[in-house]
Amino acid sequence: MNLPKKITIWEVGPRDGLQNEKVHLTLEQKAELIQLSVDAGLKNVEVGSFVSPKAIPTMADTDQLCALLPQVEGAKYRGLIFNLKGLQRGEKAGLKACELTISASRGHCLANMNKTPEDAVQSFKEVIEYANANNIYLNGAVATVFGCSIDGKVPFEQVASVLKALHTLGMRDLTLADTTGMANPKQVYEYSCRVQELFPDIKWTLHFHNTRGLGLANVLAGMQAGITSFDTAYAGLGGCPFAPGASGNIATEDLVNMCNEMGIETGVDLDKCIKLGYRVEEIIGGTRSSSILRAGKCSDIVKKH
Amino acid sequence: MNLPKKITIWEVGPRDGLQNEKVHLTLEQKAELIQLSVDAGLKNVEVGSFVSPKAIPTMADTDQLCALLPQVEGAKYRGLIFNLKGLQRGEKAGLKACELTISASRGHCLANMNKTPEDAVQSFKEVIEYANANNIYLNGAVATVFGCSIDGKVPFEQVASVLKALHTLGMRDLTLADTTGMANPKQVYEYSCRVQELFPDIKWTLHFHNTRGLGLANVLAGMQAGITSFDTAYAGLGGCPFAPGASGNIATEDLVNMCNEMGIETGVDLDKCIKLGYRVEEIIGGTRSSSILRAGKCSDIVKKH
Repeated sequence: MNLPKKITIWEVGPRDGLQNEKVHLTLEQKAELIQLSVDAGLKNVEVGSFVSPKAIPTMADTDQLCALLPQVEGAKYRGLIFNLKGLQRGEKAGLKACELTISASRGHCLANMNKTPEDAVQSFKEVIEYANANNIYLNGAVATVFGCSIDGKVPFEQVASVLKALHTLGMRDLTLADTTGMANPKQVYEYSCRVQELFPDIKWTLHFHNTRGLGLANVLAGMQAGITSFDTAYAGLGGCPFAPGASGNIATEDLVNMCNEMGIETGVDLDKCIKLGYRVEEIIGGTRSSSILRAGKCSDIVKKH
Repeated sequence: MNLPKKITIWEVGPRDGLQNEKVHLTLEQKAELIQLSVDAGLKNVEVGSFVSPKAIPTMADTDQLCALLPQVEGAKYRGLIFNLKGLQRGEKAGLKACELTISASRGHCLANMNKTPEDAVQSFKEVIEYANANNIYLNGAVATVFGCSIDGKVPFEQVASVLKALHTLGMRDLTLADTTGMANPKQVYEYSCRVQELFPDIKWTLHFHNTRGLGLANVLAGMQAGITSFDTAYAGLGGCPFAPGASGNIATEDLVNMCNEMGIETGVDLDKCIKLGYRVEEIIGGTRSSSILRAGKCSDIVKKH
């Protein structure tokens, strides 16, 4: 079994996790959770998004939040954006990195951005030029890569076409996202192998939701295909707007536990990560879809007896 | 990615799923769920156990339940046993197959059977002789293979020693069980490869709990190692006595969904399997740890839009 020695985790709880929560966190609560994340060794954090406050009210204060980010060595923060306006808000807020997002599927892209994927990529030109000119690191996130709630299965050719357009514009850091929780390990392995063959100079990250219980199996498949960077959300926040009650993003603590058990380095302290998860649950006033927060670590169970 | 074309599922909901439930099902409810399982194509069913009613009261009526099993072509039923007394109860109840169980770890075996694994295997001689003489098919289930709540990690050598003793006694159909939900995919892959190398004439089944969210990732690892038979429980019943509130066995519908999405045959109708899961939840009056019962199939989500 071909597995990496080390992986990188991007904590996307502050953005993908909190964006659809009914409980709106205060600025101080958001900042506290980011502080706890960084303390736990989760030094790559997607802190929020710069989108219309009307569309996603929970993210309206991302600009102010940026002023409260812990300035720790090695910490990397980014904000999610759709366009130049978002990038400029991120820049003004002091961020050194942003994530430009697009959907691979036509249906989702039209619904989300009111543009076809092809038109959306063209509109990225000015964003990329601005980022380059102003020294802001830009990565791309491609949504609905493994399935779309509108179009269903998204053929690899459709995905590859969007990736090629992004590559042509100079993007070399891309995240493939299973927005709808429709990915399966076989597909993840195949897509991961193929994108690396087609675009060997791109740095890849995978973003899974655990909607159908396949989150960690999909990570395993991605790892076996050579991918070493993954998005997760504290306490398994995230949910799926298309399936109310379903699980959210992969829980950060679940992935860290899996890696610890398999001897794969993450740089994250699992105990601190678990404390972070409990604090998230305390603030949102409920539980989501973390396994480790319910079961504890393997070693905890053994200690009890 | 090396994957099988087809796998076999053993539905263990009636035994491992229901045994620790607070709600005690009536005989009729138990029989109804087995009927629905068989109707869904889950023709291999562990119907209950023949153990002390004091130890596990929910299984006290397994003898009577056997009289209510649907007599369908291809259906295979078995009961879990610890000793000759259990086997004889199974025989009297009309079962053609039983599963003899033992723990790989010393601590768990002593706590559960009041015997060391070595002594327990010796006591199996009479069980195996009786089964052979009376034409009852016997498979073995080895608990705590991947970790023990008392002993912690169980070295492969300890597992192999118990497997060898069972092999010497003539057993050729063994289930490796992750009783405590401590298995990880790397370990599953390695153990699965090694047991097949050591005992190529044994037919293997893997039994996972989803305690730490790794159930399906562990199945994936087992499949890649060439194992094609897995235990699951309807609606994800099962729980973990050492971690209250944790997930149970892998949910049958979650594994069937994963296989469907990956093009692996199970012989199970996912829609009927989902209906079975909802009926289980209706009877127990709550939800456990099924993903598909919350999220629906991928195709359902697409249809809604």
